[in-house]
Amino acid sequence: MQASTLQSKFIKIRSNKMFELVVIAVIIFSALLVGAKTYEMSDTLISVATFLDWFITIFFLTEITIRFIAEPRKIDFFKNFWNMFDTVIVFVSLIPADDTDMAIIARLVRVFRVLRMISIIPELRMLLTSLIKALPQLGYVMLLMFIIFYIYAAIGSTLFENINPVLWGDITVSMLTLFRVMTFEDWTDVMYETMEVYPLSWIFYLTFIFLSAFAFLNMVIGIVVNVMEQENEKARKELSEERGEPTIIDLSDQLKSIQLQLTELTEAQNKTK
Amino acid sequence: MQASTLQSKFIKIRSNKMFELVVIAVIIFSALLVGAKTYEMSDTLISVATFLDWFITIFFLTEITIRFIAEPRKIDFFKNFWNMFDTVIVFVSLIPADDTDMAIIARLVRVFRVLRMISIIPELRMLLTSLIKALPQLGYVMLLMFIIFYIYAAIGSTLFENINPVLWGDITVSMLTLFRVMTFEDWTDVMYETMEVYPLSWIFYLTFIFLSAFAFLNMVIGIVVNVMEQENEKARKELSEERGEPTIIDLSDQLKSIQLQLTELTEAQNKTK
Amino acid sequence: MQASTLQSKFIKIRSNKMFELVVIAVIIFSALLVGAKTYEMSDTLISVATFLDWFITIFFLTEITIRFIAEPRKIDFFKNFWNMFDTVIVFVSLIPADDTDMAIIARLVRVFRVLRMISIIPELRMLLTSLIKALPQLGYVMLLMFIIFYIYAAIGSTLFENINPVLWGDITVSMLTLFRVMTFEDWTDVMYETMEVYPLSWIFYLTFIFLSAFAFLNMVIGIVVNVMEQENEKARKELSEERGEPTIIDLSDQLKSIQLQLTELTEAQNKTK
Amino acid sequence: MQASTLQSKFIKIRSNKMFELVVIAVIIFSALLVGAKTYEMSDTLISVATFLDWFITIFFLTEITIRFIAEPRKIDFFKNFWNMFDTVIVFVSLIPADDTDMAIIARLVRVFRVLRMISIIPELRMLLTSLIKALPQLGYVMLLMFIIFYIYAAIGSTLFENINPVLWGDITVSMLTLFRVMTFEDWTDVMYETMEVYPLSWIFYLTFIFLSAFAFLNMVIGIVVNVMEQENEKARKELSEERGEPTIIDLSDQLKSIQLQLTELTEAQNKTK
Repeated sequence: MQASTLQSKFIKIRSNKMFELVVIAVIIFSALLVGAKTYEMSDTLISVATFLDWFITIFFLTEITIRFIAEPRKIDFFKNFWNMFDTVIVFVSLIPADDTDMAIIARLVRVFRVLRMISIIPELRMLLTSLIKALPQLGYVMLLMFIIFYIYAAIGSTLFENINPVLWGDITVSMLTLFRVMTFEDWTDVMYETMEVYPLSWIFYLTFIFLSAFAFLNMVIGIVVNVMEQENEKARKELSEERGEPTIIDLSDQLKSIQLQLTELTEAQNKTK
Repeated sequence: MQASTLQSKFIKIRSNKMFELVVIAVIIFSALLVGAKTYEMSDTLISVATFLDWFITIFFLTEITIRFIAEPRKIDFFKNFWNMFDTVIVFVSLIPADDTDMAIIARLVRVFRVLRMISIIPELRMLLTSLIKALPQLGYVMLLMFIIFYIYAAIGSTLFENINPVLWGDITVSMLTLFRVMTFEDWTDVMYETMEVYPLSWIFYLTFIFLSAFAFLNMVIGIVVNVMEQENEKARKELSEERGEPTIIDLSDQLKSIQLQLTELTEAQNKTK
Repeated sequence: MQASTLQSKFIKIRSNKMFELVVIAVIIFSALLVGAKTYEMSDTLISVATFLDWFITIFFLTEITIRFIAEPRKIDFFKNFWNMFDTVIVFVSLIPADDTDMAIIARLVRVFRVLRMISIIPELRMLLTSLIKALPQLGYVMLLMFIIFYIYAAIGSTLFENINPVLWGDITVSMLTLFRVMTFEDWTDVMYETMEVYPLSWIFYLTFIFLSAFAFLNMVIGIVVNVMEQENEKARKELSEERGEPTIIDLSDQLKSIQLQLTELTEAQNKTK
Repeated sequence: MQASTLQSKFIKIRSNKMFELVVIAVIIFSALLVGAKTYEMSDTLISVATFLDWFITIFFLTEITIRFIAEPRKIDFFKNFWNMFDTVIVFVSLIPADDTDMAIIARLVRVFRVLRMISIIPELRMLLTSLIKALPQLGYVMLLMFIIFYIYAAIGSTLFENINPVLWGDITVSMLTLFRVMTFEDWTDVMYETMEVYPLSWIFYLTFIFLSAFAFLNMVIGIVVNVMEQENEKARKELSEERGEPTIIDLSDQLKSIQLQLTELTEAQNKTK
């Protein structure tokens, strides 16, 4: 009975507008603190920042606990992706950081608190969900692109390894070099270097640029067409449903009832004769 | 009464085609003067330019005054965005410039007179309005992008500060560096430098490029879909309204009146029996 | 009478499939010759090339003359853009080239003969026509972009002239530098240089990149929307015209005639009563 | 009879799910081996890799043989593009490699085995087919682009050859330099160099960038419009066919039968009179 009272009290807190605003304020404050810590700070400021860090950690822990207790069925709490997201971020930042090596990791982990900005703003949550949903449909184009990269990296590594091992040493390094070529970042320097040994190696770079650009273009068009189709589908539904506008099916039904009326009329006429 | 006469006279001037052309000519001339002043000039030319500057200032001031007096309700003048725009530009260029430091500011302020080109050409005004209208709908994608930049800048500043403080000194400098990486401008130089200390730091750059490119792509697609929808909506309206083409609703109404006629006919028939 | 015979003979030549193929062959050959002359050549080859050049010039002159005489109404010949295009190219390459300075100009002029490739392939002519048609609709966006460039160039030239006169010397040089910044070509080098004097000058570059990218995006979307609309319009027309499919107007007309028939029927019924 | 038994046995093997999985596993394994061979390896590992190479070659040869024998009509085997594709890849990697020069070629040839990834995954096969199908429709835009490149390369080679023969030596090298300019890769370095001799040569680069960017944009829009049209066509067909929704033609037919009924009714009415 007492637990239930506590729960209803926590549900009240969770639904409280004030509580929500305080949570948002603390999240924004923690994001600012993450930024502030990248500047040079005096020792006093460092101690203040460390204290604020712990305050934020405890605050987030309390907030998660309240939300957990307020949940009527505990299993639902873990089914919600964003609850899990928040819980993981909060618990990970509990990792103690005594050692110097661990200190950097602890600082990095606290950076991820900024991600809570996404979980509290519903529009950003929706945006992220739609971004993640768009990924798998690109799966095969990305696989094709990976195969193109892999083949060119294998060829590049075989032919150019002795010319510049830093760029073409093994297949992973070659793939990084090819990504650089794809972004057009000083790609002619890479090309001119190999052209001194193999004067025709420009064919290697040009075919790679054309193939990867073409596959990339295909990927972009794939996304655009997909998004457009979804929009059109949505627009069509809204148009016919919301406005209550008759469809061609309705017209056809109306015509059928007219035909029926006419048939009846003709029969009645025939009887009169 | 006299004020009213003056006002009607000014309204006449404002509506005068000749006056409009003179204003446009002076605006274009002031734009050319701004450009001319960036070239080396003899002392004589400098005095001529200074004189012309003052002439333009006084001309613009007179023009704004005429437009203000010609306005029947003074409050409407300030409600119009473009009137305010012109007034601010004209008044700001009245700032006196004696000091050498102020001289540069005065020259800069006069540059903004070129913006009056936008306020006099209606098509440019419409274009700018539509550009500004397009911005808020991108708000959340831009916020997401800012969060991505902020997190990566915080990580970059934490890890790479000791490697190159010029690029990764604090969070603002790191964000500028990340913007540079996003534009692919010598990004491999930045990467190779950190890869010497952290050989796996290419993961940092590649994930950042993918995330930011994906968010950017999303933004572009968002704008395209929006523009297309507006165009489709407009096209659909024009099609049905302007051509007076019947809609499906009209057809349905016609069918209903036919059904009514038929019902009446059947009833009449039944009476005859 | 004799002139008329000559004309009909020339019309026959012009319509001759063989003649057309020879013209195409000579045009392609002249394009290859232009390319060949960029390589190192022995003195013998140079004399051969000079002879071939004169042969091509005379051939083109003859071809144009034939086409001109074959034209029934001489004025129509000059009304056709592509006839004028060919004539200008052919006559310009008649310029004698004795002097060394003129020699380069003569060589350059002969390069433009490659453009005749466009005038003989109908698909390329259509493509070029549609490209040129697309330009004016972009007029205002391009004017807006020019104003953005002009204002930023004036500001840049005012502030940064003393830092690097090669990049920011006057307004034309500054506009070229800004175009370079827009293509992201070593733009950070330009920025870091001015940031040493004005640490906040990154605002200048970032706002410029955002504004120009936004205007550019707008331009691209404008073209896409325009092309799509034309395609949709074309598709709609084809659909209804070619297939002879009834439109909503036809349906409405059918309904009207049914209503008329019904009215007549009702009147007839009433008379019977 | 015995051959037929062998064939039916092979058909059984080919259709076997287990066999398919083994083939896919060997293809992936051969791809990994290609990658592994780009790393430094001890002598033992090199012998292992050589042995595995021969094992994969024999396995692929056996697999192709099974598929060939399993084919009822031998001519159909060669009509299938992907069968030919696999056969060529397998047979080419049979080339013996004794000589050091040949060794590199043999290694390169084995890289192309990775392409078998495309032939075994149906989605990738479809993707590649659609990519190849999209190419010819771009034919004329690509020809136009080639003409633009050719003319600018001829001009560049004529004017700038003495300034930098490495970049502008002959027409092929000039076209490579122009491709570099088109990708914005250090294009200002190329420009500043020629501007020292011809101060107006920026016109050459800017017009080239505008023309090629415009043609490229046109190409992209061409693809997008094409893809969209196909999608729209597909969507329209699916909509009307699958849902069995009546079309406007059906409505018109219904109306015609109503008119016929009415005419009959009127005639009957007239007889009654």
